[in-house]
Amino acid sequence: MESISMMGSPKNLNETFLPNVANGIKDASKVTIGIIGSGDFAKSLTIRLIRCGYHVVVGSRNPKLAAEFFPHVVDVTHHEDAAAKTNIIFVAIHREHYASLWDLKHLLTGKILIDVSNNTRVDQYPDSNAEYLASLFPDSLIVKGFNVISAWSLQLGPKDASRQVYICSNNVQARHQVIELARQLSFIPVDLGALSSSREIENLPLRLFTLWKGPVVIAISLATFFFIYSFVRDVIHPYMRNQQSDFYKIPIEIVNKTLPIVAITLLSLVYLSGLIAAAYQLYYGTKYRRFPPWLDNWLQCRKQLGLLSFFFATVHVAYSLCLPMRRSERYLFLNMAYQQVHANVENSWNEEEVWRIEMYISFGIMSLGLLSLLAVTSIPSVNSALNWREFSFIQSTLGYIALLISTFHVLIYGWKRAFEEEYYRFYTPPNFVLALVLPSIVILGKIILLLPCVSKKLRRIRRGWEKSHVIEEASRSVPHLSPERITVM
Amino acid sequence: MESISMMGSPKNLNETFLPNVANGIKDASKVTIGIIGSGDFAKSLTIRLIRCGYHVVVGSRNPKLAAEFFPHVVDVTHHEDAAAKTNIIFVAIHREHYASLWDLKHLLTGKILIDVSNNTRVDQYPDSNAEYLASLFPDSLIVKGFNVISAWSLQLGPKDASRQVYICSNNVQARHQVIELARQLSFIPVDLGALSSSREIENLPLRLFTLWKGPVVIAISLATFFFIYSFVRDVIHPYMRNQQSDFYKIPIEIVNKTLPIVAITLLSLVYLSGLIAAAYQLYYGTKYRRFPPWLDNWLQCRKQLGLLSFFFATVHVAYSLCLPMRRSERYLFLNMAYQQVHANVENSWNEEEVWRIEMYISFGIMSLGLLSLLAVTSIPSVNSALNWREFSFIQSTLGYIALLISTFHVLIYGWKRAFEEEYYRFYTPPNFVLALVLPSIVILGKIILLLPCVSKKLRRIRRGWEKSHVIEEASRSVPHLSPERITVM
Amino acid sequence: MESISMMGSPKNLNETFLPNVANGIKDASKVTIGIIGSGDFAKSLTIRLIRCGYHVVVGSRNPKLAAEFFPHVVDVTHHEDAAAKTNIIFVAIHREHYASLWDLKHLLTGKILIDVSNNTRVDQYPDSNAEYLASLFPDSLIVKGFNVISAWSLQLGPKDASRQVYICSNNVQARHQVIELARQLSFIPVDLGALSSSREIENLPLRLFTLWKGPVVIAISLATFFFIYSFVRDVIHPYMRNQQSDFYKIPIEIVNKTLPIVAITLLSLVYLSGLIAAAYQLYYGTKYRRFPPWLDNWLQCRKQLGLLSFFFATVHVAYSLCLPMRRSERYLFLNMAYQQVHANVENSWNEEEVWRIEMYISFGIMSLGLLSLLAVTSIPSVNSALNWREFSFIQSTLGYIALLISTFHVLIYGWKRAFEEEYYRFYTPPNFVLALVLPSIVILGKIILLLPCVSKKLRRIRRGWEKSHVIEEASRSVPHLSPERITVM
Repeated sequence: MESISMMGSPKNLNETFLPNVANGIKDASKVTIGIIGSGDFAKSLTIRLIRCGYHVVVGSRNPKLAAEFFPHVVDVTHHEDAAAKTNIIFVAIHREHYASLWDLKHLLTGKILIDVSNNTRVDQYPDSNAEYLASLFPDSLIVKGFNVISAWSLQLGPKDASRQVYICSNNVQARHQVIELARQLSFIPVDLGALSSSREIENLPLRLFTLWKGPVVIAISLATFFFIYSFVRDVIHPYMRNQQSDFYKIPIEIVNKTLPIVAITLLSLVYLSGLIAAAYQLYYGTKYRRFPPWLDNWLQCRKQLGLLSFFFATVHVAYSLCLPMRRSERYLFLNMAYQQVHANVENSWNEEEVWRIEMYISFGIMSLGLLSLLAVTSIPSVNSALNWREFSFIQSTLGYIALLISTFHVLIYGWKRAFEEEYYRFYTPPNFVLALVLPSIVILGKIILLLPCVSKKLRRIRRGWEKSHVIEEASRSVPHLSPERITVM
Repeated sequence: MESISMMGSPKNLNETFLPNVANGIKDASKVTIGIIGSGDFAKSLTIRLIRCGYHVVVGSRNPKLAAEFFPHVVDVTHHEDAAAKTNIIFVAIHREHYASLWDLKHLLTGKILIDVSNNTRVDQYPDSNAEYLASLFPDSLIVKGFNVISAWSLQLGPKDASRQVYICSNNVQARHQVIELARQLSFIPVDLGALSSSREIENLPLRLFTLWKGPVVIAISLATFFFIYSFVRDVIHPYMRNQQSDFYKIPIEIVNKTLPIVAITLLSLVYLSGLIAAAYQLYYGTKYRRFPPWLDNWLQCRKQLGLLSFFFATVHVAYSLCLPMRRSERYLFLNMAYQQVHANVENSWNEEEVWRIEMYISFGIMSLGLLSLLAVTSIPSVNSALNWREFSFIQSTLGYIALLISTFHVLIYGWKRAFEEEYYRFYTPPNFVLALVLPSIVILGKIILLLPCVSKKLRRIRRGWEKSHVIEEASRSVPHLSPERITVM
Repeated sequence: MESISMMGSPKNLNETFLPNVANGIKDASKVTIGIIGSGDFAKSLTIRLIRCGYHVVVGSRNPKLAAEFFPHVVDVTHHEDAAAKTNIIFVAIHREHYASLWDLKHLLTGKILIDVSNNTRVDQYPDSNAEYLASLFPDSLIVKGFNVISAWSLQLGPKDASRQVYICSNNVQARHQVIELARQLSFIPVDLGALSSSREIENLPLRLFTLWKGPVVIAISLATFFFIYSFVRDVIHPYMRNQQSDFYKIPIEIVNKTLPIVAITLLSLVYLSGLIAAAYQLYYGTKYRRFPPWLDNWLQCRKQLGLLSFFFATVHVAYSLCLPMRRSERYLFLNMAYQQVHANVENSWNEEEVWRIEMYISFGIMSLGLLSLLAVTSIPSVNSALNWREFSFIQSTLGYIALLISTFHVLIYGWKRAFEEEYYRFYTPPNFVLALVLPSIVILGKIILLLPCVSKKLRRIRRGWEKSHVIEEASRSVPHLSPERITVM
């Protein structure tokens, strides 16, 4: 291997460093890693490096004080010394102090500086910390990484917890060295390419359920609306009409009327996005036209919508199963028995009601069973054990069947009541009628897509066919792929 | 590193390629990767390679038209150019067009050709696509890989989705280069050895729940049989005898009599295979004799049988919990209350019935609890956090206890009714008697295996002991290991 | 490849061996691996190595007999031959036979010996097997590894099962070679540093739910105590007072009174440990003082405590849902109906009781919903998809809310009965009073920690601030991090 001339002190670097870290051959204990900063992260990183056989030189503004906090084998010294002695340097100080390293510029030329900093807010600065560091030290090799790692997991060694380390740099060689270093510290490095990714990497630890926010807001809004709707119809209405006090229904019955509507609406939303995407592709006659952003976002959070739907469905099941445990049920029952005895009705059997509820329950269990299969295959490690065909069979085919069965579940629950006037209290339709709106649209849309003429055209488009005029029109700097695109060439 | 003489144009390859990709040291952006073909997969692969810092040259039959679909930095040219300019070439065209590359043969000598093709059917051709390519270009280094990756995940970068890439090649050096390349594209390469594995790799994306098929067929057959059996006994029989119309029982009661039998039978089948394997080893006095294929297949799908058993058990639980919610239950109850009042029975308490049901429910919950532990440890990421001892404790010890408890659950359900003639309608035994057949056999078999004399012999066999005469007899080209073989030397 | 005259001459080694295994560039099939021992592990390892393209030389005490068990391509020979022909040698014999290799010492000088042995008990010997081997052959490069792999997964190739291989060695170069070898055999090597880790590695396969033991013992003790407590109060007491035989309550009602107390107590224990840790840090005014071992252990098994709590909670739910299915419930109900008719009470409605149970059930379902979110995020692959903020939001914020809601669940269950004398049977408080003790303490403690003055001080400490006098006092050879320590620098 010849010496590499692009680096500051190429020969030295080549001899002492490259064969060690990059090739993973020589004794790691002979490699010296520098750390500028003596805070918590620096301490934990030091411990991890030492355990993996590296020498560590720590640069501190107050080496004497700082030294007390570090293991004895560590060389705690001034910033200048640390910079001079090593070729790979972790910059473990806050962004505000980056400028204070300006004086060391000549010592850092050609060396790898690893920016491990985090911000306290998403997009806190116009540029990322790593890009700022790169602008200060244009002659150093800036690498972003290790910021997603907690000091905690650095010290204990990454076993269960998140082991992935995201790394990027404009200098590929430096990036590979840091990737190799991460691998030796037992992390799983993920190469995110150029330094422009550093913004994304710095936002990663600040992310708080990004993809969940939209679906959760939708679910909560739907739940609030339908809760109030049911409350007005089932509690306020009888109270105003007959002074009948049904307020006890609030904690369970009204909640349990809200949950299933939210569940089936969310499930419909999962598949509605796919239908709209298909319609979009059919309309423009190409799959290389980018979807509008709202549709893109919607498509991306289908998994979250589906899991929320499952969550609401299971809570609905829990509430339903608890119905017979309630004291109110018992009292109503006892009173009914009293009535039956007094009316001297030997047999109160109503065949239609019996069938309605048996079918209703039966369809409910079936759709829950299918939904739980969908939920289980969303667990990352189960998911990754499936190939694309299996995944799409479960998420698409079984998912549509689950939607169909839950629609039947609602239909049977409603039975003939949708056509009886007394259920239109305050001139509002019963809940189950509202619950059916979206699922019906989705099922109808799917049926249209399955018509031979439509499905044939769609399949052609998804294989890359385009209307001829499209070629000039569409923006295709990065060709877009349909969500159902599959593995082949 | 000296030049390596085993390759066609070693010097060229060594200088331009090896130090870059294989050692991961030099600038990836200086490595040029060729892609022959300009379809969807080619486009997505191009985008991924560019993001990771590679140069890409795309070979197309119609470069001018194709160029419009690719990013501007990509060099879209003729096949010949692409082949001439690069040392690693993705062959992203259909198998039918392989022969059209024949003219480039001289340009491809000594170069790495990566076959990324897929078929539309399992075992579509007598030889795999990669082997066919190798037969056409014997002087090139053929590597199979990347076919399990969807264009979708190539473009977005593999984060959640399936990141594993299976790679094989007869040339180990080429294989390692492609493995390294896969790693740099953020995939997890899995080395499957020689090119003969390419057939398996090409079948991977076409697989549709291979290991699930057998168990699902068994479960559906059992369910159908027992559904009809219960229907005849519990609906047809009372109708024929007393014109009693119990058809309302079909959706819930009959289904709920079917599910538990299927569940316990499937659970027994899990452990029956292990018993038969042990008997086989005891009979032949060695563990190095291969099991017959049916037993091998059966042993391999025990996990699937167990999970299906758990699925049927939980659905059985769901149905059972819904029983009190039914309208039929309410009517029967009200009628019972009416009867009791009319008969003037102050207290209808039946201590035996009370105890039977309390014990029945109690054992049911216990076995469900154990089965759910077994199911949770089947989640791949939970599974891989366990060592062998822990896994075998849960899957074997706890599994047998679960089987034992569910057998008690059924026994208590049956109670004395197995001995009452009125339950033998149409001269058929009640369902629970059938449900007990297999579990009893398995429990008996396990007891025999636990007898000191038998268990001692079995343990000796599994440690490698053999009957002396066996040594000549058995085929042992690949020694076979018992399913319960454990880590040690 | 020329013959190798041994590692005494590093140059030779560097030229002939390193480029193969370590760089992964040359043809693996030209690398020869030695295995001393011809047992099961040796056989399986041989098969795996051959599949990956290595040559294998097996050393046996009786080569002729052993050869029959190995594939024909394998060179089965005497120990001396195997040692002489190869540079990487697996020592696949029992510790007791290590000394028998003493005669080969000169042949093993400078070579890599991989100790794959396991023990039958934790800490069976004063030193680990690998350290013992190192003491016998001080001039060889001892590496510990591969012992956690079952012969089974060696043969089939590691796909689903545990793929992690733990490796350690005092010689970093040798360690990296073995790591690279493990990677080529498709395992995921984990570098555990120096040979002193070999003790830990040898104990790994013997581990049986180490972290689970404490929590399980606590859960079983609590369950036993509260079961007896409830039995005495709810079965023995009425029997002694009124000769009322309620023994039928044992399998379900008594168990179902035990489960929720255990669940809520375990959940409180999860958060109590964190509170004590915070108090400890506040008291000593630093986070660099190590926690006492009991607290450390407690903090480490919080996940296990939480999952056990969830398990008990779900079983409690299962029991509760089964209550209406019981025959006893039916009889009591029918008798109640009889009473109501006889007493001629048209409406037995009790508004307070109705509200109590509706609220009770409602809070129960809510806390179960939250607990199941916590449980799902404990699945390793779900966990690793979360960043630290998300994880801590779910485990800490949602966890405390779940504890709060379950406390309400218990409070509402108890209602006014805590103040009624008749519930103090045998002068003991009712179960729900005991169930409230720990949760109340934890909630109170958390409120104190949330007071601005306390929380401000705690936050300062966790950012690294220390009381000045502490610096001299505290032992800080390895600085300790608080459990809530977060990613930043």
